[in-house]
Amino acid sequence: MGRVTERRRVIRIRDGAVSTRPDTLVAEEPLEIRLGGKPLAITMRTPGDDFALAAGFLVSEGVLASAGDLANIVYCAGATDEGGSNSYNVVDVRLAEGVPVPDITLERNVYTTSSCGLCGKASLDAVRTTTRWPLDTSPETPVRIEPATLSALPDRLRSAQRVFERTGGLHAAALFTTDGELLDIREDVGRHNAVDKIVGRALQQGQLPLSSCVLMVSGRASFELVQKAVMAGIPVLAAVSAPSSLAVDLAVETGLTLVGFLRGASMNVYAGEHRLALSAAASTD
Amino acid sequence: MGRVTERRRVIRIRDGAVSTRPDTLVAEEPLEIRLGGKPLAITMRTPGDDFALAAGFLVSEGVLASAGDLANIVYCAGATDEGGSNSYNVVDVRLAEGVPVPDITLERNVYTTSSCGLCGKASLDAVRTTTRWPLDTSPETPVRIEPATLSALPDRLRSAQRVFERTGGLHAAALFTTDGELLDIREDVGRHNAVDKIVGRALQQGQLPLSSCVLMVSGRASFELVQKAVMAGIPVLAAVSAPSSLAVDLAVETGLTLVGFLRGASMNVYAGEHRLALSAAASTD
Repeated sequence: MGRVTERRRVIRIRDGAVSTRPDTLVAEEPLEIRLGGKPLAITMRTPGDDFALAAGFLVSEGVLASAGDLANIVYCAGATDEGGSNSYNVVDVRLAEGVPVPDITLERNVYTTSSCGLCGKASLDAVRTTTRWPLDTSPETPVRIEPATLSALPDRLRSAQRVFERTGGLHAAALFTTDGELLDIREDVGRHNAVDKIVGRALQQGQLPLSSCVLMVSGRASFELVQKAVMAGIPVLAAVSAPSSLAVDLAVETGLTLVGFLRGASMNVYAGEHRLALSAAASTD
Repeated sequence: MGRVTERRRVIRIRDGAVSTRPDTLVAEEPLEIRLGGKPLAITMRTPGDDFALAAGFLVSEGVLASAGDLANIVYCAGATDEGGSNSYNVVDVRLAEGVPVPDITLERNVYTTSSCGLCGKASLDAVRTTTRWPLDTSPETPVRIEPATLSALPDRLRSAQRVFERTGGLHAAALFTTDGELLDIREDVGRHNAVDKIVGRALQQGQLPLSSCVLMVSGRASFELVQKAVMAGIPVLAAVSAPSSLAVDLAVETGLTLVGFLRGASMNVYAGEHRLALSAAASTD
């Protein structure tokens, strides 16, 4: 079974002084996800929570929506390394009876339609029409969050990042309540994998949709991460850094609350401001 | 034709004060790369330098090695958006006569072999045996670089990052001489795309292999980035942040000089230290 970190020799140079020492690195290994025995995707990931990663990936792709859709997930016994041991790098997901098996797409996370070639608009439409849990876009949404609660999340995320402390080398995603309570955190060399692990674990525990949760990610907010939040029914996505144009467009179109540059008492709200208790904050303006 | 940045409305919260203003975001759009008319890969990228991106991607995959391997690259005329205009999101690469067309793989950047399931070792072997330009691993390598030269690169990269200054939202890759002179810089929402754009442009200009260059990337060094450096014949890869275990293993196996945590006069050398002029530096230890 793969490890989360590995040790390697490193030569350190500090202001001209050279020394050699062991260093702790984040582990990266390929994972192949099969669906009913058929290869579906390969991702470079940090080993661990592989079943959750596979399940969460299939939530993002619109294949799984609840624990009942899943028959089981196993490591492929035939996938062995040079020594004949199981590589633990191939997982096979079997769907429950009656759950439709999707067409195998060329690559994950991008939708194409024959009607319009390939464009951002088609990607937006695909997510909006595929999700099982459309987000609540009315001003009377039951999900509200205080800016002050959001401001506390980056520190909580960082202090819960155990592997990052040792390696400085990986991304994190964390799930919080709207009161700022940490529910789950996952770390991975790929930010999308960390989110898949969070969502997949929630599916396994019968907690989808995550309709009263906040997803927080280290780094940037791409289209792919907004897609994953929407497909899991998560109404609020907060990122430490900048979103892309297509991430903002998807958030606007689906009603997701998208917060970027979340740093202490400062943040940018790009979409879904109806969930933020802004009136009180605005009165201090 | 897509733009590199786009404007969106944003609500800024700064210490309780709420204001609304336009914000500049990095653009993200899907790009489909076809080979001889057949879909090969889709990547989410920042529009611009799309032909270079496609060419560089095919260098990484071992399909292209010189400008002569390439017949031409065009935007697919049939790929239109809702208004009937070309979406400029689908490019078709045609190989020169006699250049073998590879098997279409499931997903980019990961190699599998039937002999060993799927494991990191197989990924390493595939890159080592596929590259046209094995790196020089002898202690008498002609490519040498001073640690002081490396120390100057992050500032040069950052000051050349024009789009980052406006959006805070994207990665950069830059090509330098071993004397620290900036040759090229590309910015993109995906770090791998920025590297593909650098390598593809070099291929188009007949400059492969880049055997006396240093590639510098913002952020981390993954397996994929080491693979791209090796496939382009680049002997030195420097990153601002941490490498993964598999990135280090691939660098060791191929003879690449891999530098991480490059910050001012500090850096970690994970592999290929024979190219660094360390003796002078060590004498100050």
